Amino acid sequence: MIKIVECVPNFSEGRNKEVLEAIAQQIKNTEKVRLLAYESDKDHNRSVFTFVGEPEGVKKAAFSAISKAAELIDMNEHSGEHPRIGATDVVPFIPISGVTIDDCVNMAKELGQEVADKLKIPIYLYEHAAIKPTRQNLANIRKGQYEGLKEAISKDPDRKPDFGPSSLHPTAGATVIGARMPLVAYNVNLSTNDINVAKSIAKAIRHSSGGLRYVKALGLEIKERGIVQVSMNLTNYQQTPIFRVFEMIKKEAERYGVEILGSEIVGLIPMNALVDAADYYLRIENFDKSQILENRLWE
Amino acid sequence: MIKIVECVPNFSEGRNKEVLEAIAQQIKNTEKVRLLAYESDKDHNRSVFTFVGEPEGVKKAAFSAISKAAELIDMNEHSGEHPRIGATDVVPFIPISGVTIDDCVNMAKELGQEVADKLKIPIYLYEHAAIKPTRQNLANIRKGQYEGLKEAISKDPDRKPDFGPSSLHPTAGATVIGARMPLVAYNVNLSTNDINVAKSIAKAIRHSSGGLRYVKALGLEIKERGIVQVSMNLTNYQQTPIFRVFEMIKKEAERYGVEILGSEIVGLIPMNALVDAADYYLRIENFDKSQILENRLWE
Repeated sequence: MIKIVECVPNFSEGRNKEVLEAIAQQIKNTEKVRLLAYESDKDHNRSVFTFVGEPEGVKKAAFSAISKAAELIDMNEHSGEHPRIGATDVVPFIPISGVTIDDCVNMAKELGQEVADKLKIPIYLYEHAAIKPTRQNLANIRKGQYEGLKEAISKDPDRKPDFGPSSLHPTAGATVIGARMPLVAYNVNLSTNDINVAKSIAKAIRHSSGGLRYVKALGLEIKERGIVQVSMNLTNYQQTPIFRVFEMIKKEAERYGVEILGSEIVGLIPMNALVDAADYYLRIENFDKSQILENRLWE
Repeated sequence: MIKIVECVPNFSEGRNKEVLEAIAQQIKNTEKVRLLAYESDKDHNRSVFTFVGEPEGVKKAAFSAISKAAELIDMNEHSGEHPRIGATDVVPFIPISGVTIDDCVNMAKELGQEVADKLKIPIYLYEHAAIKPTRQNLANIRKGQYEGLKEAISKDPDRKPDFGPSSLHPTAGATVIGARMPLVAYNVNLSTNDINVAKSIAKAIRHSSGGLRYVKALGLEIKERGIVQVSMNLTNYQQTPIFRVFEMIKKEAERYGVEILGSEIVGLIPMNALVDAADYYLRIENFDKSQILENRLWE
């Protein structure tokens, strides 16, 4: 079956188009990899690239992009509002199809080792790839940013990188590499204009106040339609699937005599998140994803 | 968005492996095409190949396979139980993703013209590609088979091919080319061992007795589980979607106090047939299939 990994590296450059084009070219030149988009923010002076492909290709493209960024971005001259510690700041690998989060953890570790060895950039492993539990949280790694880490990396044993030298690369700084699940932005629209209903349901379903583990939720007004919405980020659609979130909201809404009008998927979604919903509602027995014709295309 | 067409040609050879391998090689050698399977039946002396890919590649592979079959199969020496009129007997194009049935009709006509021009094989267009309404039905085209068509093709104006000469190719006979929707084999298991319930529901939902247009259905016993099943072929999942069939069976089963235990998808299914079910049950507003990450991979 086809194996697809997504990679969403963040680079500390959001203004110089030539630099960004040079990085994009590294990704485009890698076989079996497709650059889907890149977006820059001038105030943050930062850009986010999104590319997908087979695991080996994606790892290669990530290495090439990191090399090019190290060559062209000088952290000593960088300023911007967004926290950052390196030319290539953060590199997450994300399992899309035919690969597990553990496969992506392995990719992160292999890439980390390679970048440390060949480019002499210190590497911190984060999220699912974290070796030190405190490094699951990106904010802990970026504390003090580039300027602060410069001293701390050699002096504070807690800030020692997972791979590479205990000193920042003279221009490229340090890089965070890891693995995380795809994020699904999912909203559910309700048949009421009462914002309290949306807020109460959001509170019931989100992890932070006792709800489902991988749900972040807010109640919002959609004024132009005269309705309210439960607006969510689903941070692990495999363990907290969309259909369970939908059904739980439906049940909670009943309590207020409110119906679900519809739902919205914002941006991209992995095919499997939708296939899992079909599998659930159609009660399919022993379904194997290799029965999906598209999965046979490039196995 | 990615464009995928499936092609399932039938060849009048089910015994000689060298011939079949030579045909398979033509398909395998075509860029952007993937041969998924081929199956032979010795009694029928016939083989079915399944390949998929981008439209241009699929058309090219089909032409190469037809050429090779014309070179290696002599219909004057062919015998087998299955009706047939040519070395390449039937070639359907099937829309899977990013293409319509009309796109496949155009592919069928272009391929038909090319085969007639270059190989001098008479071509009949069938199903959605049929120009003469009677040719929507394959059985009408194959009437009298190879042996009978030999005379009829030149004498009976009704048997004149849509492209090519009004005489059979001396060894390859004639070929039927067309377009059809993918077939989905779908079964629903019921919480009863009463075969009459399955038969009544099958009768209610199938086209032939007044039900949904693109449903063929039978009631069957699954003895080892002590249950019954509605066994179906869905011949157009876009116009008669799986979720509607499932919900209609659920409703009909209620009448007998019977529940749906589960359902089965037999063999391959296009991703979109499942995505449509997720879209329905999750009530997604304005969903665009280009939001599915996998659809961005090879656009």
